[in-house]
Amino acid sequence: MLIKVINPNTTASMTEKIGACATAVAAPGTVIQAVNPTMGPASIESHYDEALAVPGLLEQIALGEAEGVDGYVIACFGDPGLDAARELARGPVIGIAEAAMHTASFLGRGFSVVTTLGRTAGRAWELAHRYGMAGFCKNVRACEIPVLDLEIPGSSARETITQECKRAVEDDQADVIVLGCAGMADLCRYITDQVGVPVVDGVAAATRTVESLVAMGLATSTRSEYAAPPVKQYVGLLDGFTVER
Amino acid sequence: MLIKVINPNTTASMTEKIGACATAVAAPGTVIQAVNPTMGPASIESHYDEALAVPGLLEQIALGEAEGVDGYVIACFGDPGLDAARELARGPVIGIAEAAMHTASFLGRGFSVVTTLGRTAGRAWELAHRYGMAGFCKNVRACEIPVLDLEIPGSSARETITQECKRAVEDDQADVIVLGCAGMADLCRYITDQVGVPVVDGVAAATRTVESLVAMGLATSTRSEYAAPPVKQYVGLLDGFTVER
Amino acid sequence: MLIKVINPNTTASMTEKIGACATAVAAPGTVIQAVNPTMGPASIESHYDEALAVPGLLEQIALGEAEGVDGYVIACFGDPGLDAARELARGPVIGIAEAAMHTASFLGRGFSVVTTLGRTAGRAWELAHRYGMAGFCKNVRACEIPVLDLEIPGSSARETITQECKRAVEDDQADVIVLGCAGMADLCRYITDQVGVPVVDGVAAATRTVESLVAMGLATSTRSEYAAPPVKQYVGLLDGFTVER
Amino acid sequence: MLIKVINPNTTASMTEKIGACATAVAAPGTVIQAVNPTMGPASIESHYDEALAVPGLLEQIALGEAEGVDGYVIACFGDPGLDAARELARGPVIGIAEAAMHTASFLGRGFSVVTTLGRTAGRAWELAHRYGMAGFCKNVRACEIPVLDLEIPGSSARETITQECKRAVEDDQADVIVLGCAGMADLCRYITDQVGVPVVDGVAAATRTVESLVAMGLATSTRSEYAAPPVKQYVGLLDGFTVER
Amino acid sequence: MLIKVINPNTTASMTEKIGACATAVAAPGTVIQAVNPTMGPASIESHYDEALAVPGLLEQIALGEAEGVDGYVIACFGDPGLDAARELARGPVIGIAEAAMHTASFLGRGFSVVTTLGRTAGRAWELAHRYGMAGFCKNVRACEIPVLDLEIPGSSARETITQECKRAVEDDQADVIVLGCAGMADLCRYITDQVGVPVVDGVAAATRTVESLVAMGLATSTRSEYAAPPVKQYVGLLDGFTVER
Amino acid sequence: MLIKVINPNTTASMTEKIGACATAVAAPGTVIQAVNPTMGPASIESHYDEALAVPGLLEQIALGEAEGVDGYVIACFGDPGLDAARELARGPVIGIAEAAMHTASFLGRGFSVVTTLGRTAGRAWELAHRYGMAGFCKNVRACEIPVLDLEIPGSSARETITQECKRAVEDDQADVIVLGCAGMADLCRYITDQVGVPVVDGVAAATRTVESLVAMGLATSTRSEYAAPPVKQYVGLLDGFTVER
Repeated sequence: MLIKVINPNTTASMTEKIGACATAVAAPGTVIQAVNPTMGPASIESHYDEALAVPGLLEQIALGEAEGVDGYVIACFGDPGLDAARELARGPVIGIAEAAMHTASFLGRGFSVVTTLGRTAGRAWELAHRYGMAGFCKNVRACEIPVLDLEIPGSSARETITQECKRAVEDDQADVIVLGCAGMADLCRYITDQVGVPVVDGVAAATRTVESLVAMGLATSTRSEYAAPPVKQYVGLLDGFTVER
Repeated sequence: MLIKVINPNTTASMTEKIGACATAVAAPGTVIQAVNPTMGPASIESHYDEALAVPGLLEQIALGEAEGVDGYVIACFGDPGLDAARELARGPVIGIAEAAMHTASFLGRGFSVVTTLGRTAGRAWELAHRYGMAGFCKNVRACEIPVLDLEIPGSSARETITQECKRAVEDDQADVIVLGCAGMADLCRYITDQVGVPVVDGVAAATRTVESLVAMGLATSTRSEYAAPPVKQYVGLLDGFTVER
Repeated sequence: MLIKVINPNTTASMTEKIGACATAVAAPGTVIQAVNPTMGPASIESHYDEALAVPGLLEQIALGEAEGVDGYVIACFGDPGLDAARELARGPVIGIAEAAMHTASFLGRGFSVVTTLGRTAGRAWELAHRYGMAGFCKNVRACEIPVLDLEIPGSSARETITQECKRAVEDDQADVIVLGCAGMADLCRYITDQVGVPVVDGVAAATRTVESLVAMGLATSTRSEYAAPPVKQYVGLLDGFTVER
Repeated sequence: MLIKVINPNTTASMTEKIGACATAVAAPGTVIQAVNPTMGPASIESHYDEALAVPGLLEQIALGEAEGVDGYVIACFGDPGLDAARELARGPVIGIAEAAMHTASFLGRGFSVVTTLGRTAGRAWELAHRYGMAGFCKNVRACEIPVLDLEIPGSSARETITQECKRAVEDDQADVIVLGCAGMADLCRYITDQVGVPVVDGVAAATRTVESLVAMGLATSTRSEYAAPPVKQYVGLLDGFTVER
Repeated sequence: MLIKVINPNTTASMTEKIGACATAVAAPGTVIQAVNPTMGPASIESHYDEALAVPGLLEQIALGEAEGVDGYVIACFGDPGLDAARELARGPVIGIAEAAMHTASFLGRGFSVVTTLGRTAGRAWELAHRYGMAGFCKNVRACEIPVLDLEIPGSSARETITQECKRAVEDDQADVIVLGCAGMADLCRYITDQVGVPVVDGVAAATRTVESLVAMGLATSTRSEYAAPPVKQYVGLLDGFTVER
Repeated sequence: MLIKVINPNTTASMTEKIGACATAVAAPGTVIQAVNPTMGPASIESHYDEALAVPGLLEQIALGEAEGVDGYVIACFGDPGLDAARELARGPVIGIAEAAMHTASFLGRGFSVVTTLGRTAGRAWELAHRYGMAGFCKNVRACEIPVLDLEIPGSSARETITQECKRAVEDDQADVIVLGCAGMADLCRYITDQVGVPVVDGVAAATRTVESLVAMGLATSTRSEYAAPPVKQYVGLLDGFTVER
């Protein structure tokens, strides 16, 4: 089984870290292909970044379809382009916020999300509502750490995040922590040891979810909304995105 | 006051129609600038189209900011790129689904949306939930008409839509009809006469809403989520989207 | 276009202030007629006051219909008598809580209402739920200022309200403030300057909303619930309210 | 124990019927005083009627307070004036829609309301939401019978209502029927026999609920929202409603 | 009328207290039979305890049916076995959480539950959602008192609970307090005097609710979900639970 | 990894089928132990059956803990005893309704559940609400087939279920089907081929979910609600359930 894990930003060090975390939890026989787009923003910290990460993500889905990929993970906590990716891909596509929130709901009465920037909290709540997980989400907490600080060796980011997770347990009475950024995937084990409640990394959760769906022979329904997009003309800078069939 | 009405697809005849409908309802002294992007899909009929309409839309917002535009309408019923546009624009930005649903809620206990393709109904419901309007939305009905059929003079589209609106009143007990596509803007008066309940065209509603917000001196809050996006590197095909300040 | 703005209490100084605020935002060509009833309470600070303000309000609607009024604003944050007024009026009727909450939802992820007395907060939440705006409403905060204190020149009310608005931004993380009393309409500009987020005055918002509906040719649906009330006998003190057709 | 059951319309024959139904279910020792106002509409079939029934209702509450009434029933399915009445009364006040819906929720997974006119369905749903009962309410069905037709001996109203109740059981899969008008109180036994599921009459349910609250020493909280209304000036036709303390 | 009040744990002193509280509020002519099962846990403080209290409870229902009981109260705040009991019993069955929450909703805008152990708060919220009462529930507060400490004369439990109730009024702005354990039934009067808002004991509320339903001739609907359970084989330790008809 | 799949009824043929379906999807290296209790009902078709299936289920969990089981599946669509099992087990516990509904939400906009008896639909909806999946659940459809008919070779059950699934796709516009009974697990492939949309079997979904959680090192949070149950006395028939530590 071939699972393509797409980091939708263009920072290769983050892609490498995400790939390692996905590989660590995959079942024997599953091949993880971790990539990032060749176009778009270096990190995703705004709706603007998120919107402009999507073309590069969709290009990677289209490439994956040509290569026979079995399923996809979108490794950014805003789950950018999830619906569009589902239209393009034959196999299942899962976002890491989606997988992390569902997984956390299996482990306790409620979770808190601990994320990077406060300006992304609105999007996290929006996703929680869309996925039916708002009733489980006790809080979305921000550490006000820029995403790429997570890539700096020796930064104080790990401790800042751990402290925020502890506050989530004490103040929100969270049973479970959800890490709100793909760049935190490698911190999951350390924080678990520090806070004493389950900590869910969406990269791992989404990788296992896709793997399970493929193993069960399940893929996105093509009945109506997620059928392949109608063929039509694309022009200008984006003319390369014309779907061909 | 200068309001820029952006048709996010690249079909100029639709842009022209949208501009005429916006102009028809604008107050004296308001100038309507109707445009469409130079890149992207000819019509928006899938999540894929919607995602790839956003870069061209954002380019138009950026151009508008340079030109001193006071507020923006996003004239596609999926309200693509609304959050990102709000980060870029100094003035208010309103989507036509957003404006139409809110407006319909002022006129009766519940409305039905009548739209083009059934595959877009999921998105319409998602927006209804996001805007708090799901409790007012009795149904989303599709006519299974491709968007660009609305541009063909003499097509049967107008009658098909009118019949679906009549069914909405009778079967859904809708007090109000919301037209679910910017391309239907010019049908509003005709359908109103046929169905006997208020019919809301989102292009008109959004134009008036933006105009009112500007008149009251109101614009998107820049407190946190909708502050200007952080400056960062954009690469590849999309390097032109690097924000400069 | 003639818009009648009805202050449902009997305090003329408040009516005057409300009229000035409505006039200030109206488009050229719109005439604002600000009135208050000749019967009922001097201010509305309880469910009891609100219920007994409604007959006088409805009398004003009936008078307005005879005078050819195009649309109505109910200028009290409890939106008293809104449904009944919609049955009587041919044109649109909008409450200031309704207009303010919808307007605030266009400007950010969430708003807080800052109002006079804590005992009215339950009603404000009830309206937020009815209008679909509860998901946007972060808090309803009271200053514990009697309504008519807003009419006393030189009182500390303005500063008390401003401080509460600042707390809403800091503690509730409100992107937008909604002023929860028609008597605060004249404070909107001052508070905006102090708190640094958009501040919405319902009198202005409702006036522009009615104006827009009339401009679009939209009025309350007469399909079922809001059709003219059935004719019947009224007796006793209220026999003057018999509807005649 | 003295319970005052107030029919908020001015039709004495309905008041008599309501009183008989309340008396029939009251515990030994409970005295039922059934009254109607001296002012207002002969029946309540619109928001307009409902709003104008409230002053007469509140007059009856005020009279009851002077007479030492222990608790009140508001015997109209729109529960008019409930909040205002709670501010005035020392003892508990219950509306018949409120009591009927709560009671029905004790008896099965879901109920349907069968009411008179379709134009009142919006109000019934609004109350279901307010009382937390919307999740139990499968449908609100109207028979399109004017309220006062229920007072005509030998009319076909009883059969029309019974047929609608049967459809509710079959088509809505309702476990329980809620009668949506105080004027149907005397039909409860007959319809129960016909439809084979529990049928709830709000007059009986509210009478027993008030009785139970009084027996437990419970009354409306006076902490904030439902404290006695602030004293203030009332003028004009309604000057008699000035609260004195 | 014979009402059987079942304490689902096996602690006789608590059963006695519960019986006294039920008897104190019952109408003249109502006989209260307070019992506890002969099998199961001494107190209910976990989901495990709750699940294992149910067989003993159901045995008591089956015995009651043989004895001609008219209705049942389940006197534990988790309302264990409520659905199963409704299938077995001909008359109505009410849980004390159910009755207390509904009753509290009649008395103010919102209530707080004050309970024993924090680990039961999740269940209390779950019930609030199921009963439609979540919108009225401002908080569920725990005193961290083991249930059987309430049975120890002279313990500090009463004061601890009273203090928590006071915090609920001040910090949650609760209009009403709901006591979250059958073992607190005897504290209702004392706490009411201390906190100045209505305090609802579920044992009293459920007793009166059952009594009212029986008086109105109402019982659980047998239409589908709550019809008598299908007859089938039971084996092993539980073979005595085979339903016979 | 050792996963114990517990069929909570006592019918061995169903246990065998469930075990085969779980084994078929498990990853290499995962051992499936399929069991059923030694006490309780032969099938679960009522709340009564469900309640009395729980003691036998909990006995199996306790045995599993002694045997070093890594995680558990509760293989009945009512997810009986899920919360109690989570308190007992060190590893994760997943119900098949829980897993199936979450899985279906990954594959389309909405699913319909197709189940055996209509009387269980209320419980299915209750679980959908609890898990946050109600917004995805378009309908719960019953075939009115007794559970054990699924064990009869050559019965018409398979065709009846398949036809109901087809109706769900056409009438509910379901993108995905959820099979509402563990006894349908072996029909998943056949029905998928017939209806043309993804069909989710909860036994497979739950097995893979537990496997994934164990692989990620995740288990139920022991912070508060799901900590091990307090030790206490159990008496009578159930004295064997006393927890010892």
